[in-house]
Amino acid sequence: MKHFAGFAASALALAISAQAFAGTVTTDGADLVIKTKGGLEVGTTDKEFSFKLGGRIQADYSRFDGFYTKNGDTADAGYFRRAFVELGGVLYKDWAYQINYDLSQNSGGDNRKEDGYFDEASLAYNGFSPLSIKVGRFDPEFGLEKATSSKWVTAQERTAAYDLIDWTNGHNGGLGIQLSGSAADSFYGSVGVFSKDATNAAEDGDSTTQFNLRGVFAPMHEAGNVLHFGVNLAQRDLSDTAFDGRIRSRLGMRGVSTDGGQDAGDNGNRLTLAGAEVTPAGAFGDDTAWGVEAAWAMGPFSLQGEYVSRTLEADSSAYDDIDADGYYVQAAYTLTGEARGYKLGKFDAVKPSNKQIGAWEVFYRYDHLSAEDDNGSFASRDDVEGKVHNLGVNWYANEAVKISGVYVKAKVDNATNSNGDDDGDGFVVRAQYVF
Amino acid sequence: MKHFAGFAASALALAISAQAFAGTVTTDGADLVIKTKGGLEVGTTDKEFSFKLGGRIQADYSRFDGFYTKNGDTADAGYFRRAFVELGGVLYKDWAYQINYDLSQNSGGDNRKEDGYFDEASLAYNGFSPLSIKVGRFDPEFGLEKATSSKWVTAQERTAAYDLIDWTNGHNGGLGIQLSGSAADSFYGSVGVFSKDATNAAEDGDSTTQFNLRGVFAPMHEAGNVLHFGVNLAQRDLSDTAFDGRIRSRLGMRGVSTDGGQDAGDNGNRLTLAGAEVTPAGAFGDDTAWGVEAAWAMGPFSLQGEYVSRTLEADSSAYDDIDADGYYVQAAYTLTGEARGYKLGKFDAVKPSNKQIGAWEVFYRYDHLSAEDDNGSFASRDDVEGKVHNLGVNWYANEAVKISGVYVKAKVDNATNSNGDDDGDGFVVRAQYVF
Amino acid sequence: MKHFAGFAASALALAISAQAFAGTVTTDGADLVIKTKGGLEVGTTDKEFSFKLGGRIQADYSRFDGFYTKNGDTADAGYFRRAFVELGGVLYKDWAYQINYDLSQNSGGDNRKEDGYFDEASLAYNGFSPLSIKVGRFDPEFGLEKATSSKWVTAQERTAAYDLIDWTNGHNGGLGIQLSGSAADSFYGSVGVFSKDATNAAEDGDSTTQFNLRGVFAPMHEAGNVLHFGVNLAQRDLSDTAFDGRIRSRLGMRGVSTDGGQDAGDNGNRLTLAGAEVTPAGAFGDDTAWGVEAAWAMGPFSLQGEYVSRTLEADSSAYDDIDADGYYVQAAYTLTGEARGYKLGKFDAVKPSNKQIGAWEVFYRYDHLSAEDDNGSFASRDDVEGKVHNLGVNWYANEAVKISGVYVKAKVDNATNSNGDDDGDGFVVRAQYVF
Repeated sequence: MKHFAGFAASALALAISAQAFAGTVTTDGADLVIKTKGGLEVGTTDKEFSFKLGGRIQADYSRFDGFYTKNGDTADAGYFRRAFVELGGVLYKDWAYQINYDLSQNSGGDNRKEDGYFDEASLAYNGFSPLSIKVGRFDPEFGLEKATSSKWVTAQERTAAYDLIDWTNGHNGGLGIQLSGSAADSFYGSVGVFSKDATNAAEDGDSTTQFNLRGVFAPMHEAGNVLHFGVNLAQRDLSDTAFDGRIRSRLGMRGVSTDGGQDAGDNGNRLTLAGAEVTPAGAFGDDTAWGVEAAWAMGPFSLQGEYVSRTLEADSSAYDDIDADGYYVQAAYTLTGEARGYKLGKFDAVKPSNKQIGAWEVFYRYDHLSAEDDNGSFASRDDVEGKVHNLGVNWYANEAVKISGVYVKAKVDNATNSNGDDDGDGFVVRAQYVF
Repeated sequence: MKHFAGFAASALALAISAQAFAGTVTTDGADLVIKTKGGLEVGTTDKEFSFKLGGRIQADYSRFDGFYTKNGDTADAGYFRRAFVELGGVLYKDWAYQINYDLSQNSGGDNRKEDGYFDEASLAYNGFSPLSIKVGRFDPEFGLEKATSSKWVTAQERTAAYDLIDWTNGHNGGLGIQLSGSAADSFYGSVGVFSKDATNAAEDGDSTTQFNLRGVFAPMHEAGNVLHFGVNLAQRDLSDTAFDGRIRSRLGMRGVSTDGGQDAGDNGNRLTLAGAEVTPAGAFGDDTAWGVEAAWAMGPFSLQGEYVSRTLEADSSAYDDIDADGYYVQAAYTLTGEARGYKLGKFDAVKPSNKQIGAWEVFYRYDHLSAEDDNGSFASRDDVEGKVHNLGVNWYANEAVKISGVYVKAKVDNATNSNGDDDGDGFVVRAQYVF
Repeated sequence: MKHFAGFAASALALAISAQAFAGTVTTDGADLVIKTKGGLEVGTTDKEFSFKLGGRIQADYSRFDGFYTKNGDTADAGYFRRAFVELGGVLYKDWAYQINYDLSQNSGGDNRKEDGYFDEASLAYNGFSPLSIKVGRFDPEFGLEKATSSKWVTAQERTAAYDLIDWTNGHNGGLGIQLSGSAADSFYGSVGVFSKDATNAAEDGDSTTQFNLRGVFAPMHEAGNVLHFGVNLAQRDLSDTAFDGRIRSRLGMRGVSTDGGQDAGDNGNRLTLAGAEVTPAGAFGDDTAWGVEAAWAMGPFSLQGEYVSRTLEADSSAYDDIDADGYYVQAAYTLTGEARGYKLGKFDAVKPSNKQIGAWEVFYRYDHLSAEDDNGSFASRDDVEGKVHNLGVNWYANEAVKISGVYVKAKVDNATNSNGDDDGDGFVVRAQYVF
């Protein structure tokens, strides 16, 4: 005992001397663990409480022409695509909150995002684990690319096919409640109800209620060894609402108003595939979208695709149903050998194994969109189609810094943008960091 | 000594082994204490410095009809009532700062709150304790419910009687300086001067200077054992200013523009009790408000009430004085037995004693408002009156999460809202968390 | 050994007893150091990662007349000049990020600042130390006062001479990349390229590309012992762009729209020295600015000055070149004896040595501006000149709190503001805290 005491005490003496002039850090409650990887995480060891502060910045510089600009000439722009500050934590073990606020300015071209907006502000109850109940503002779940964080989707922009069904997986300022759960490491499901604005809805009347459903079966669910299938369904009733009925797409680039500045995502150069801006109440009823998703990954290679379909059902004999569908196929390969991360239901970060050169990934994605509308000015045209090629490279310098470049080429059949263009090229370089 | 050394050293050895693989956390200055209850607090043990990061989210879902809507039909809405991020701390022992920024969007229906606004951004000097001098942007003090944090007021919305005197306890974007102090655990007082915009004032001229005074005597001042009295006075001089002179009320609900979305607090459905929107300079002079407040709490039961009165003095013979007064009485009872917290001058949180079921509180409040205006279109009418019944329940799941529901019923005499309604019902469910 | 063990162990026992009931704080990675001086800093001892959260608030109360107001009468205003929240850190040793977001509302009178804006959001790579490569949104470098933080410039507002060349050192919402480096503790240089909006540019066309260059030689570079010289150059090509060509100045005060509120910096009372609001594409070509700077400090005394010159070159025979130049000289003296801090290329904080009275500093600055424009309405006038006297006092209560007051007197030759005033007086009191 004496020897042991001597040993321990002298080890202590060394420790004390190594920390000469260092003050102590304690807590007046449960033991804490704290860490930083550029942001900050603090949690009690008994898992009762935690706090995390972080964020993500995506700074884009783009050049583009044709369809992607307002006048068809070449233009360029530098802007923040996203600038999130993220706060989250655990409250009394069973509750968890998350607040993601996007500070990027005018980045969406719509009123919600004049200066900043909530990507998420939610509260979840996890006391019935593995079930989770979440309330607040958050995106409804629909699709694999949407489930994957904007930090770790392969191409800079998610598939253009989502533009056909944008109401299904965006919150548009509303509130919702969602129940989700998983089982056997392979099954995941969620069901949600949301109270939202129908886009540009009139000022009077009830909010629009939306239902979402997602199911995933992933018999293989580890990084570099993924087999993933999923189905999605969303529905809303528009029968009592006047709304902006246009189905539009940016065709794979944010686009800008081409004034060479920060205003990404201006609507001026969107393609309208179907629908009328002013759609009166009573014209349409159920708006239904469904989708299927599949992914396969083996080592550094991954393949994924989704198909989405939407039907806007005519409620009046003066109108015809509007149908739209789209799909994408994407292949990605990490030249440096790392596998894409995977968490049940979604892909995750590529983590570089070589500190000197980071991880290098190349990818190609093909997006296809089409819509059938026999109403109004669309009645006399063939179905509008859009095709987008995306070819790019991602450099993961480390787990926090990602630099990426993508070349996008789009072609439209049977329509043009407001300036008369039916094709366009664009190139985007993005510097991203997360903390 | 030897035995003691052995004991201490072996205790240490155990501690070291329990933290195998755990890195040390030290400070290069004074000793620190750190903690999290979902947010983060760090302070030096010598009290020279501290830092605290937290916030509060209030997500509301409402249904209402009649007076509360623009067209009298039933409507619903989901929106954030408040979404504060809060930063504060101590600087060099004697100074303290506080920044509360509200990120909720369009939540006030006025220009100040287009995307976010400062609830508070202030600096206090506490070197003359128990006196405190505060400068910056913060709400003037007027009334017991206003003194109580929006996190812990009993009903979701503070009394409608405050609508009559809204300029007295809101900062409206100005700056102020305030001296406050307490004595003998029972006396509290504050006096402040504020430089503000008179509501919708013309573009030229000086700012409006406002004086506020509050005094509290609380012979009983512990949770569950409260006897509280207070007086309040506020004055401003409007003689040189054109201003929006309407005295308006939301009658106990935020209301929305009933487009089923996030835009809480639209002005469209407010009741105008008195005053004209365009009031020329020279029409009125002193604007004076006073109020009295009282509260009593015994165990889980609390009773509180306030009376406020305002006189807008005519400065020109072409105008008559405008008078308004209002009051409320509120009773609350915690079914699970907990007492409402109390800190000198204000109520505080109900802290649940039972971890399984939390604390359950029921309450009823009656608000009454009336105004006398013999000018313009009001001259031919009897005095406008508003009456509001609020019946609700609060569930404090723990010290961070509060779910509440309230039913509100309003009736107006001798006036209607812009849509012709003179009564309305509303129901609000709120999910609140603080961190 | 036994004695030592006994000593160490009993010291430990004391430490443990002093921390009775105190929980441990550890990390699951590299050892951490944490500290607070009102904000928060956490870093790993191996320098791989760090995180810092802080901010700055500047609350101003101003009175002014004549030129500084819209109608020439006396007016006053209280508002936030700056309200920054600042996040930054180190990511994987070689990378550093910084996010400074200004929450002060309507503080710039222009669209960029409707509610908040990025002062900086950047990512730097420091792996080639002493070289640093920075990308993102940040101010181009031009001039000594601009290099000095807004927290620690001597007068509340930087020299009015900068108004002549405002595009050179503001980011205006664009993105940039910059290379900087230092050598031998005496040499500093930076070169940057920026993609920006030309002020109020038309909606179509490329962004405006801007180049900046700064070089500093400081043979003496310690607090209280400074000899500093610098040169600056900036250029942009406006030949293809319609733009707002006015060269305007606030003459040393933010000014307000004099509605007695929070709207600092309204444009209504700016002096237009040259240029036309609507300047067509093709009228002018290269816009070039250069400047020289010098500073000398000995003990509590400092002297500094800068000269800036700008030429907007006519590209069409229908236009004449526009020339503008300005300078300032500033003397500052710390009554309590402290020297101004200095870091290579810029001044830093005055740190009070006496805890009771803080540090007191007095200063005087003279600004001079002039412009020659022989186009349009300016052709018939003599050159417009502006002269500004700034006399002030700064009280550094401690390293976090600074209270300052400045009296500003301006006189204009050969022009007036929109209200016909050619001179004005103003007084500003500022309460500033940093954390």
